[in-house]
Parts: sequence; structure tokens; C-alpha cells
Amino acid sequence: MLTDIEIARAATPRNIAEIAARLDIGAGDILPYGHDKAKISRDFIAGLDGAPEGRLVLVTAINPTPAGEGKTTTTVGLGDALNRIGKAATVCIREASLGPNFGMKGGAAGGGRAQVIPMEDMNLHFTGDFHAITSAHNLLAALIDNHIHWGNALDIDPGRVAWRRVMDMNDRALRAMVLGLGGPANGTPRESGFDITVASEVMAILCLANDLNDLQERLARIIVARTRDGRPVTARDLKADGAMTVLLRDALQPNLVQTLENNPALVHGGPFANIAHGCNSVIATRTALRLSDYVVTEAGFGADLGAQKFFDIKCRAAGLRPAAVVLVATVRALKMNGGVARADLGTEDVAAVRRGLPNLLRHIENLRLYGPPVVVAINHFSSDFKAEAQAIIDAAAAVGVTAVVCRHWAEGGAGAEDLARAVVAAAETPSDFNLLYPDTLPLWEKVETICTRIYRADHVEAPPAVRRQLDEWQAAFGHLPVCMAKTQYSLSSDPKLLGAPEGHVIPIREVRLSAGAGFVVAICGDIMTMPGLPREPAADRIGLDASGQVVGLF
Amino acid sequence: MLTDIEIARAATPRNIAEIAARLDIGAGDILPYGHDKAKISRDFIAGLDGAPEGRLVLVTAINPTPAGEGKTTTTVGLGDALNRIGKAATVCIREASLGPNFGMKGGAAGGGRAQVIPMEDMNLHFTGDFHAITSAHNLLAALIDNHIHWGNALDIDPGRVAWRRVMDMNDRALRAMVLGLGGPANGTPRESGFDITVASEVMAILCLANDLNDLQERLARIIVARTRDGRPVTARDLKADGAMTVLLRDALQPNLVQTLENNPALVHGGPFANIAHGCNSVIATRTALRLSDYVVTEAGFGADLGAQKFFDIKCRAAGLRPAAVVLVATVRALKMNGGVARADLGTEDVAAVRRGLPNLLRHIENLRLYGPPVVVAINHFSSDFKAEAQAIIDAAAAVGVTAVVCRHWAEGGAGAEDLARAVVAAAETPSDFNLLYPDTLPLWEKVETICTRIYRADHVEAPPAVRRQLDEWQAAFGHLPVCMAKTQYSLSSDPKLLGAPEGHVIPIREVRLSAGAGFVVAICGDIMTMPGLPREPAADRIGLDASGQVVGLF
Repeated sequence: MLTDIEIARAATPRNIAEIAARLDIGAGDILPYGHDKAKISRDFIAGLDGAPEGRLVLVTAINPTPAGEGKTTTTVGLGDALNRIGKAATVCIREASLGPNFGMKGGAAGGGRAQVIPMEDMNLHFTGDFHAITSAHNLLAALIDNHIHWGNALDIDPGRVAWRRVMDMNDRALRAMVLGLGGPANGTPRESGFDITVASEVMAILCLANDLNDLQERLARIIVARTRDGRPVTARDLKADGAMTVLLRDALQPNLVQTLENNPALVHGGPFANIAHGCNSVIATRTALRLSDYVVTEAGFGADLGAQKFFDIKCRAAGLRPAAVVLVATVRALKMNGGVARADLGTEDVAAVRRGLPNLLRHIENLRLYGPPVVVAINHFSSDFKAEAQAIIDAAAAVGVTAVVCRHWAEGGAGAEDLARAVVAAAETPSDFNLLYPDTLPLWEKVETICTRIYRADHVEAPPAVRRQLDEWQAAFGHLPVCMAKTQYSLSSDPKLLGAPEGHVIPIREVRLSAGAGFVVAICGDIMTMPGLPREPAADRIGLDASGQVVGLF
Repeated sequence: MLTDIEIARAATPRNIAEIAARLDIGAGDILPYGHDKAKISRDFIAGLDGAPEGRLVLVTAINPTPAGEGKTTTTVGLGDALNRIGKAATVCIREASLGPNFGMKGGAAGGGRAQVIPMEDMNLHFTGDFHAITSAHNLLAALIDNHIHWGNALDIDPGRVAWRRVMDMNDRALRAMVLGLGGPANGTPRESGFDITVASEVMAILCLANDLNDLQERLARIIVARTRDGRPVTARDLKADGAMTVLLRDALQPNLVQTLENNPALVHGGPFANIAHGCNSVIATRTALRLSDYVVTEAGFGADLGAQKFFDIKCRAAGLRPAAVVLVATVRALKMNGGVARADLGTEDVAAVRRGLPNLLRHIENLRLYGPPVVVAINHFSSDFKAEAQAIIDAAAAVGVTAVVCRHWAEGGAGAEDLARAVVAAAETPSDFNLLYPDTLPLWEKVETICTRIYRADHVEAPPAVRRQLDEWQAAFGHLPVCMAKTQYSLSSDPKLLGAPEGHVIPIREVRLSAGAGFVVAICGDIMTMPGLPREPAADRIGLDASGQVVGLF
């Protein structure tokens, strides 16, 4: 059996100008990066203003398990299948972070015969967007310390600088530090640290900005610190927004690549869904909607994180209306939810699938709060038994949801045509779209609403400082949505609680204001905004073989 | 009068495939980045192995002053002029660092009518090479702390980790820190810090590597720490070299752009010459030599730094033999060396030029130690008086050197044809090429040789720990050359000592072993490997204008 990378390398990519032509984008309106990647120019995108938009389909999933669910794979397979049944469809996914690639999770480009290529580039520097975000973020950080160093005219309190630095790396040693040591020539000593770039507010801003002007306005609004008398200090106060915008100007243009079946895919932006808002960029999604009948996009991790934030942050901010939602599940993942060990997943066990179904059903219930119709995609593995898949189909049918077995991993788009037809039937049925909570709900109640209605917690706990902080922000920022940072492995904040837990408590450890991105981050439990590397990092095995091909990355 | 950026924007760039064709590089052998930049593929470069090489001309300068000397401008103007007089010439310069661009020194692409374009891209992310170097460097750093965290099987002494982290930013607050704070989940607390990316050993390795295999071998040899019993720990011990090579694979391919006159320019690598070895990459220089009659390259800052390291590090490592050296001077800079204030540079003052000449003559003497003929380029400013330039011509003639007034800034290549003819005459005269010191000279004596013969110091001072360190390295690394880190403003280590100082003392503060790059760094005086931003950083003024054009960067 061929590996993902062998399949990707055996593909026949078309020159990216041909893929652009499929979307009626001329060769002068793309900026090629090599022969198989390109950015779509901002002038071309500006020219699309007011064009009619296609239908938006969100792909989300049950809570992830080590068995693998295949959310990106299903996104790509569904996009290819829609093209096969005559709908001009574009896939919109996120860019990959280097951090996890050198840790343990390689590959953010799908798998099997449902991949986006060039896979190696996508998992390395790609077109440099994350590096641009890192630079813009860290320039702002340098300007803060530089301002303090040269007389501190704004009277910034060095103990209340909230803006950390970022690196696109898993590096636990940078989580907490004292910097500015070594004497007065090196600035003022203070506590700080680094987050991973995907958690940067600049990443969220790039993903939520409508255009270059909106980008700069949002950057200017970033609150980086407080003065000694408690007033907020913004990036605008530090005159940082112009230079940051310059650093991000190219990165704001979405990246065009192709699927293995030579259909267009936009890959742009990459916030994680456990520590950030978890969706690709608004610019990419909207550009694709104006160029396609259907846009298939995914949001990170399970529906409790990715889908909730896709709706309540991205769709709210950008005025997007999804036409349908695909919820990806696998027999294997449900069996793990049903208590089966990974080594035993090859044994037929319908009862275990049934024990795992509550996780799937809980996500269906949650998704239905938003309105658009839900279709379950059962991403087929060769080890699955027919009766196991049937148990899922039956359980979904019992709540009025169509579940479709799809074989895009093995067969490409041809294996997902049934899913594509079910999605078209759902998306072409008029539906409502509701947000989970109104802008006017107080910040703390927004947190409670997400925790009790989506996570099904009994209640939410937070130290008094967190409550005070939210109260302080309520007047000026109370209209903002909340971005939860929570483990992806459970609907609760305890990664070990599988299935559909109820009655648990969500502890909020810390809150951060992202005034530029336009949300308040609430950090639950032990989730870290700078991951570490595992005992045996993937980096140990990554290298070039004798022919100069990358090994160990996937 | 048009500004540099106005001239650059008014240019008519050819598609980069046309420029490649000038060098007989086919469209399939380049990787375009937009329409005006491309990388030359490693397969094409491998195919040039053994091809005959053109003549190599080094452009260097007197010590820099705030008046500006125009070394890159002269490099570009000379390249264009050589093409005009019928020599197929390629320019090889370095990439720009983001750090100084947001500090005070914008622009590393020449000026006036002697520029390389696209100037904006070159001063921003360009093709991402520096970001790749930053990632590779910091991956190694993360792997060190991760190794210590997970049991420390190699028994690394956390107090003897020599490998710092890097960022392409001027950020003094990162010079010295204690990281790994916040409890055992965040690793082991220890002192460390960040350097600017251009000072990274990985940057030097990329610039000195012959090919991908050599790159990986050099990366593997990097010494990052000592064990508790004093043994060196290498990147190979940490299994980091493969993943670092993967991160650098694309970056190792040189970048092709063009001059305003549509001649080819390779822009690749960018170590600073005050804190690193200061030359563009060996791969770019050698590729250009195999594709051109003449290659014109520059080394950073004054000849005491850039040229000395170009000869004794780059030419030594790569076996390059320069055919001629161009020493750039300006009337204005010599007047500043002669004690004239910047505001008074517009007044004719031949006596001041004469007082400044010792700096020029000292560099001529130094350059002659190496063998290839020297030509002085007097980079003309419109404020210069004829008698002032004549004073330079006469002084050079008195020591047997041709000095040529050149007007490429105002006139492009046409203004440097006289210089081009003088350079061709010099380069086509057979000459010797000698290194300043043999490999076999002990490390400390190499430092002394550079300080006394080039800097003309009376003697060198170093704390006992520095001497002990060099003695310790002597057995295994004594054959390596020395890379001096010293202020660019003076031949001494005191930035205020202009002219041709003698009898001074060079204090060596610290030594660092770059076993992968293949040199020992000796840090003199107060020079910093992480710059800071000035009181009013350029970032304050950088932004986009209403039409989306970058302002304030140049």
C-alpha cells in the first residue's frame, strides 16, 4: 500500500496558472511560488467585491482520538467529489504550523487519495505566511521594550505588559522567562514568555481581516500593556501598526494550490482550534465563495472547539452563512470512545461502536443549535466492518440525520460522491443560521453559555482575578465574542473524559483580551499556548534521503 | 530629484525567466517567487559542476561614515558597466536583514540608478531564506532544552549550553534572559539569550556550504553545549542535523533578481560583517562564476572587516581566487574622516579630504597584503568638487593605484564604464593571491595577526578565560580561521577613532566556536550580537500609503 507521501509524489500536478484559470484568475493576477503554488493578488480580490457567492459547507468532527478521524481528508475528498458531480467546488483549509511537524503530528494536507499538494511545502515554510506573522508580532514586542528603554513616554508599567513574543516552534523552555537582563543597556528586566505563532493575535487578525485597511485597523487596536495608572496601551500608541501591516501585506493574499485531482484549494491562515479560533482566513473563504458554486472548509479539532468558534467568531465577524455542516466520524474513533484499546481496533465490535455513539450524537445536538442541516460522513477505514458502520447510520437516522460511508481516502473524489450528493441535498434546502449567543450577552455569561450548552458543564469556575478582569473589560469590550482555549480530546476540560460527559466543571485559568482580533480568550484547565516537544520528537527522524527527498515529515 | 524607491518603481523589470535565459537557465530550472524573483534549482547548479569559471571582483570600502560610501551601489553600477562594455557580468550581493530595516538602516539594494530590484521585497521577507535559517537555528535550541527535559541522556550541563536562539529583529530585551521558568513542566531554568539571525552559525553555514551534503555535515558538527564532564555535544548527537537540513533545503538555492538595467544579480545569504563573516553565499558566487565572464561581489562594511573575512574565511574555505579588488571611497566620507561635520560636507575642502586620506591608504596597504590588484572607485556625489576628487586620484597614484571617479548613482552603468575598464585591465593582469595567515598558525596568533597587521593595534588583550578557551580549542580546532566581531566605524575597536589609528589595543571580550561554519569568533570591545532599536525607530514611519505602496522603508 502506498503511503500518503508516495501518493502525493506520484501525482501529476498542473502548473498553478492552469488551476487559477479554472477559477477565471489570469496569469497576471497570481504571484507564483514555484510552479505549484501561488498567491492570488489583492487587486484581483478587490475586483470581486459584490460578486454573488456560492454555498459554504463546514466540515467538522467528533472529538479526536489517536485512531484518526480524517477531517481534512474528508474536506478534500468532498471537494473533489462535488467537482465530479458537476459543482464547481473549492476547498479552503488552513496552513500547517512547523511546531507540531517537528513534534509528533505531521501532515495537514489530507491523506490517501484525498490530499492537497505540494504536501512537503505545505508542511514546511509554504509561502512564508507564518514567518511574516511571527515577524509582525515580534516587531511589536520589540517596540514595546524599546519604548520603555528610551524614556517610556507612555508610562507603560513593565509589570503589566500583556504582549508576549511568538515562535513557530514547540519549545516549552520559552513559556516563562525573565528577559531584559544584563544591565541597563539591555532594557528593563521583566517576566514574559513566548507562545506558538498559531496562538498569536496577529494570526487571528490576519484570518479575520476583510482587507488591508481592516488588517491595519485591527492591528492598531491591539492592547499590549497598561500604563502605571491602568490605561490601555495599543499598537497604535506605539506607531507599530504601519510597519506590521507592511510585514503582513503579502501574507494577507490567499495561497492557491490543488488537490490530487487538480481541483483548486485555498490554504490560508492557521490558528489552532484548541488555543485559538481554529479557522482559515475570511479573505480566502470569501474569495473562494465568489469564484465557486461550493466552498468546503474545515475548522480544527472537534465540533465543540472548531465548529463553535467557526460559527460564533468567524461567521459572526464576517457575516458568513453556512449552508450545511458535515460531521466526520470513524468507526475506529467511536470504538475508542467506546473503550476499545488502539491495538484492538481491528476486531469487529458493534457494541463498542454503540458505546461510542454518544460523542457523535452530542455533537449533532450541538450543531443543530446553529440551524444548518448536518450530514454525518463515516470516513471508511479498510479495517471497518459493515455492521459497525450500519450502527452509526442507524443512530444518525434515529435523530433524523443522514450518515454516509465515504471512501475518498482509498478512491479519491469518486469515493465521496454519495456524500457530495447528500451535502448538496442538504445545502440546497433553505435553513436558518443562528449564533449561540447575542453580542449583548455579558462576557462571563458568554463563557457560561458555551460551557453549559456546548460542553454540557454543570458550572464554570474562575479565580476572582479572572472575574474582575472580565468585569473590567465589560464596558468597552463586552460586545466581543469569547474564544475558548480548551483540550481537544474531550467535550470537557479533562482530556481523559471521552464520550458525552455531563455534570463536569470547567475551570477558567486565565483570560486574555484580543481587542484587535475582536474576541476575549478564556483559557480552560491545563491547556498551554506554547506546546512542548515529546520525548522522541519527529525531528529525530526527519531528513533527506540519498536522492534529496524529505523523509520522516509525514 | 527622484528618490531611490521612485527610481526603482519606475523601472521596467523583465520577467525573471528572461533574466534566467540571459544566464542560459531554462524556465524549468528556476523556481519563481512572483514574477521578478526566482531561486535557481539545485539540480541545475549540480549540473554546472566542473564548468570553467569567470573572474571574481571584490568590492570593498573605507570605514563607513554617516556620509555614506555606496558599496552596494558601486557593486551594482560596476556590474551594469561591465555588461555595457561587453563582459557578461553577474552581481552577487547579500540579502537584507529585517532588524536594521525597522531600526535605522533601510535599503540593501544599492541606490540611485544602480539598484537591484524588486527593492521592497529585498528589504522585507524576500524569498524567506532568513526565516528558514531562524527556524533551523531555533529548532536546534528547542531540541537541546527538550533533551535536557526528558532525562538528559547525553548529560548536558545546563550551565554550559552555548547555543542561543535567534530572531531577525533588533531587540535588546532578548540579549540576556533566564528561560525555562514556571516549574518543571517548562524545563530547566538557565541563562541564555537571542542573537540577531545574521549572526547565527546557521547563516554562516548556509553561506559557506558547497552543497546540500556539505550543509548537513556542517550542521551536524555544530557544538551546542558541554556535558557535565566537559565533552562537546553536537547537533549530530541531538539528531538535529536532518531536520535542520530539511528546513534549509530551499533556502540553499540562490535567488536571482535583476538590476535596473536588467542584468542578472544573485542575492543570497546575509551575515553582517561586524558580527559575522559578512559575505554572500559560496553557492551563489560559484554559480555566478560558472555562468559569467565577471562576477562582482561585495563584502560588508570596511575592508578591515568585510574584505579580510572575504579572503581569509570565504576564499580560504571555498578555494576562490579574486582577480581584482575595488575599494570604494567618497569625497564626503574622507572629509568626515578629515574632521568635517556632516552639515558642512557641501563646502569645498581639499585639505579635509587630504586629512581623511590615511584611512583610504591604510586599506590599500592592507588589501595589498593579499595580492590581487586594487582599483579605487570614487563614488561621485553631486556635492563633490573636482579638486577634492583629484586629491584622491593623486594620493592613489602616488602608491601606484588607479582611482576612477564614477557616476553610476546618477547615470547607471554608463557612469561606471571607466571604472569597468580599469577593473578589467587589473583583473586580466595575472596576480598572486595570498591568505593573511596559514591554517597552522595557533588560534591566538591568528587573532594577533589580524589585530596587528590589519587593525594596526599595538597588542591584543583578553581575560584569562578567553585565552584558556582558545588553548582548549587549539588541539581539535586550531586549524580554523578566526572571524572577528568588531565595530565597523574604525580600524580599531573604538568607533570614535577615525582615520588610520595605530598603537591602540584590541580587547577580546569573548570567543565562540563555530565548528560547523568552520571558524572561531572573537568578539572585540562592546560589539553586540543582538542590536537594539534607536530612540525613534524607522518602524514608526513605515507603513502603506493610500495606494497601498510601502513608505518609510527606504
